[in-house]
Amino acid sequence: MEKLLLTPLKQIKNPKGDIFHAIKKSDSGFSGFGEAYFTTVNRGDIKGWKRHTKMVLNLVVILGEVEFVIYNGDEFLSVKLSPKKNYQRLTIKPNLWVAFRGLGEINIVLNLASIEHDPNEADNLELSEISYEW
Amino acid sequence: MEKLLLTPLKQIKNPKGDIFHAIKKSDSGFSGFGEAYFTTVNRGDIKGWKRHTKMVLNLVVILGEVEFVIYNGDEFLSVKLSPKKNYQRLTIKPNLWVAFRGLGEINIVLNLASIEHDPNEADNLELSEISYEW
Repeated sequence: MEKLLLTPLKQIKNPKGDIFHAIKKSDSGFSGFGEAYFTTVNRGDIKGWKRHTKMVLNLVVILGEVEFVIYNGDEFLSVKLSPKKNYQRLTIKPNLWVAFRGLGEINIVLNLASIEHDPNEADNLELSEISYEW
Repeated sequence: MEKLLLTPLKQIKNPKGDIFHAIKKSDSGFSGFGEAYFTTVNRGDIKGWKRHTKMVLNLVVILGEVEFVIYNGDEFLSVKLSPKKNYQRLTIKPNLWVAFRGLGEINIVLNLASIEHDPNEADNLELSEISYEW
């Protein structure tokens, strides 16, 4: 799907506690820094649908496992991210619908966003308004 | 202590999973974006001492509890951060010695760093080389 990028991330082992890369200024997919925040999603709960019109999202699942579903108005793409099984960064450019579901016991997602939060640049739909077989 | 800043962070409650602020471009303490990465530290383990000569650290503990000790060559400052008991961002400007210990079961720290990782801009000492009563 266009406007989407999946980038494998390094984990650096350390006996006192590992290091997990997230994003560097020089990485492809980096589109400027506006804000970093965490979103959590309970196991079985689904957040969405949301569509940003300006913000580029860079999403990293640092704990648990999260299934992201992206809809471009034509087709769906689903990807499951987790530090243990599939540690990648998901870059989502504007104008895609996104929803995500918690699969692990505790699920924590970092969004490194290209602009600061602005409720006026995002559209929301109820989950039922875009039909997807979760 | 100069060169240190503690900034309370918002947690936005949500029945499907809370949102945790970390840092915005317009926040005091923000000194440019170079890289974001996670470091973990096992319960009871201590990482340090490390002193950056250029990087400004912006540290957020998103899981567990971590005790940070900062040494300016003259005095020590200790602060315990956690999402449950003390959710604040710790900004550390260059030229301070830093060590940190894991207190929770799983401890995850986000560092939003002002420059990309560069081993040449950091000094390291063994824990025993700066005497502190942990």
